[in-house]
Amino acid sequence: MPIDLTEATITAAVQETFAQAGDRQRELFRALVAHLHDFARETRLTDSEWFTAVDFLERVGRISSPTRQEFVLLSDILGLSVLVDQINHADGGSTESTLLGPFFVEERPRVPAGADISGGVSGTPLFVTGHVVDLDGSPIAGALVDTWHSDGEGCYDVQRSEELRGRPAMRGLLTTDAEGRFAYRSVVPRYYPVPTDGPCGEILRAAGRSPMRPQHLHFRFHAAGFAPLVTMLYRRDCPYIEHDAVFGVKSSLSVDFVSHEAGGSAPDGTVVDVPFQTVEWTFVLPAAG
Amino acid sequence: MPIDLTEATITAAVQETFAQAGDRQRELFRALVAHLHDFARETRLTDSEWFTAVDFLERVGRISSPTRQEFVLLSDILGLSVLVDQINHADGGSTESTLLGPFFVEERPRVPAGADISGGVSGTPLFVTGHVVDLDGSPIAGALVDTWHSDGEGCYDVQRSEELRGRPAMRGLLTTDAEGRFAYRSVVPRYYPVPTDGPCGEILRAAGRSPMRPQHLHFRFHAAGFAPLVTMLYRRDCPYIEHDAVFGVKSSLSVDFVSHEAGGSAPDGTVVDVPFQTVEWTFVLPAAG
Repeated sequence: MPIDLTEATITAAVQETFAQAGDRQRELFRALVAHLHDFARETRLTDSEWFTAVDFLERVGRISSPTRQEFVLLSDILGLSVLVDQINHADGGSTESTLLGPFFVEERPRVPAGADISGGVSGTPLFVTGHVVDLDGSPIAGALVDTWHSDGEGCYDVQRSEELRGRPAMRGLLTTDAEGRFAYRSVVPRYYPVPTDGPCGEILRAAGRSPMRPQHLHFRFHAAGFAPLVTMLYRRDCPYIEHDAVFGVKSSLSVDFVSHEAGGSAPDGTVVDVPFQTVEWTFVLPAAG
Repeated sequence: MPIDLTEATITAAVQETFAQAGDRQRELFRALVAHLHDFARETRLTDSEWFTAVDFLERVGRISSPTRQEFVLLSDILGLSVLVDQINHADGGSTESTLLGPFFVEERPRVPAGADISGGVSGTPLFVTGHVVDLDGSPIAGALVDTWHSDGEGCYDVQRSEELRGRPAMRGLLTTDAEGRFAYRSVVPRYYPVPTDGPCGEILRAAGRSPMRPQHLHFRFHAAGFAPLVTMLYRRDCPYIEHDAVFGVKSSLSVDFVSHEAGGSAPDGTVVDVPFQTVEWTFVLPAAG
């Protein structure tokens, strides 16, 4: 490694230190170093801007926890998450995928078909029925279906952990039946701002950007013989449908939340004595890669 | 903001969300988004590589503390720190600057001229005498001089906090006298590996890179009417002088550590009854920007 490296020579010198890495690691680090250095050279990045960036990343690290994934949020608000999703999940006839988001948590309850997953939070009842099929339309039995969403005020359970005493709510892991169907009851989620009390909020405020995400339900599917699918359904008539802070909305994932009067019948036939809503959707899983 | 963003359209859409930011922020974020997205597109970054990257950054955050600056180290081993230094401190006749490194800490003692700053750690005595001047060679009185360095085994005080009970050692803040001079006693530092027990160590191991830094002393100068200077002196005959893990060595900062027999006289005239070393250097501060 030479000494006396300059603005003109340092990039190649750093890239050369990855010569002995594995093929893919060498490729990734050489590209990373090239773009990182080009970014600094093109912007004439100052010492104090570098300090600000390091301090920003340290603060992202400090606020992060298993239930507060600020680095995921940073990737989301910079559009990287959706881009990586696009790169890896080209449309091949299956349901379009979209980003996982920062609110998926591994600690979620397995729930039986038709269960109320609301965890007792108040809100307009929502009945979701789904059909999981392959590219030919044949049902997929035994598929694992993760779902999670916000409450009627736009908060996830992990943001309500004090009131909920850490219990999960509005999330669950279901399994499709022999006809590829799943169903659950919960409450209607609301549009909401991404968390703005951390470092990512500073970026949104500096740019005058809306922090809102339109109303949506999250889903993740795993089934033997199929590629995993991470997706969302967006409420078609949400006022924020064209102003998603994380760039994730796709028209193919826009869905009607159908309103019903009090006294109507839920999909399972029971009478609901308050106004409620229903969502019904068919999910097409991609073939195994 | 449009919906249905694709690999081809997302970058411009994300850049557009920074249209209302201040001029410099808009410039920085547009360049950041362009390079981040180009990196993902060029490398065809996979979902699992994205997860690995997010997990890596979270782990860098978790290990970080006021005395363990892993994000600074990450910038250092990717050559970004030296590049930013080069961009901002073009040679104008003053002593060349180089990177701050992860071991500077704000909590350091003010020490009088000639003081022993070793904090009692064992090692070969080292006497450092410095002269701080302006571009015309005139002495700068009252300049603040920070110095910090490793011990004879290559460890900084913050890495020895148990043995040292958190007391600072081998670091101090001095002031130049009327002739622009400062002097202190300490112990001879050794070459050392950057910390490899954290996430940055994984990068070095994956690349088969040496983690070593050549022997050096850190300095930081602040004086009224001058630009600050952050620099190091590197021991000219260190075996790692051409293998610096953080790319910081400059030939203009290579210095002789002069060896003396037991019974010789230190720069302050006192007789030293063990073998010792001396370093002498003139630092030229840059004019205020």
